[in-house]
Amino acid sequence: MADCIFCTIVKGDAPSTKVYEDDDVLAFLDIRPITRGHVLVIPKTHATELKDLDPDLGTKVFRVGHSLAMAVRQSDLKADGANLVINDGKSAFQTVGHVHLHVIPRQSGDKLRFVGGLVLRRSNDPKGTAAAIRAGLERLESDHS
Amino acid sequence: MADCIFCTIVKGDAPSTKVYEDDDVLAFLDIRPITRGHVLVIPKTHATELKDLDPDLGTKVFRVGHSLAMAVRQSDLKADGANLVINDGKSAFQTVGHVHLHVIPRQSGDKLRFVGGLVLRRSNDPKGTAAAIRAGLERLESDHS
Repeated sequence: MADCIFCTIVKGDAPSTKVYEDDDVLAFLDIRPITRGHVLVIPKTHATELKDLDPDLGTKVFRVGHSLAMAVRQSDLKADGANLVINDGKSAFQTVGHVHLHVIPRQSGDKLRFVGGLVLRRSNDPKGTAAAIRAGLERLESDHS
Repeated sequence: MADCIFCTIVKGDAPSTKVYEDDDVLAFLDIRPITRGHVLVIPKTHATELKDLDPDLGTKVFRVGHSLAMAVRQSDLKADGANLVINDGKSAFQTVGHVHLHVIPRQSGDKLRFVGGLVLRRSNDPKGTAAAIRAGLERLESDHS
């Protein structure tokens, strides 16, 4: 869709800090992260809400989110958990009209930082953060091969 | 796992108000719902965290969550959105050690009720609620056939 910011990112016409990409799915850093390494996973084909999303494509999005949740634990971000969230519909706090799965790395004892992040949502060292996540994905891959 | 409450529910040795079941996946009402129709979708095979969950089984869980998010919009619960959430790991607020996907129906203008629900988490008419969601799933099914 021409006026969709995530479609513009998919086309490469708007900048993003990518952490993963394949034919169907793109994952990039949230520019207003709640915690360090907060990633958005999106289908490359436009779907405004879950009702517009092909179920098979939905499982591909989820599969990447599942990998990322494990990768951040293997990464220098030293996460030991993650929140995976899809806000579906404006009433559910969806702010961009293109389905996106949040993967929000968590650490033991980060509750106050997490709550602060919900308010501040400030980015810091996106390049280093994305590199750490990509390294985590590679570690995960080599563990499984 | 013998001491896992969700495995006990899968085996039928503990009560639950089911809304969906197949060979791999079970969905039932959260006994402490944040909103009416708050459902948990679980893999029938035990997996404590996402790192323990077979990725293919994970996509089956997500696919059911995707259907439920659409079904609650088709149901008498009159939802027009939903939050889909997996809290993976104790640091991410996971409270039961068996992977579960929350599907939390939302309505426009329910923000205050939602915040109240986070605190109260009180169940009300679980049988009627589950029946409404099952009817929504059936409507969804007949729309697609």
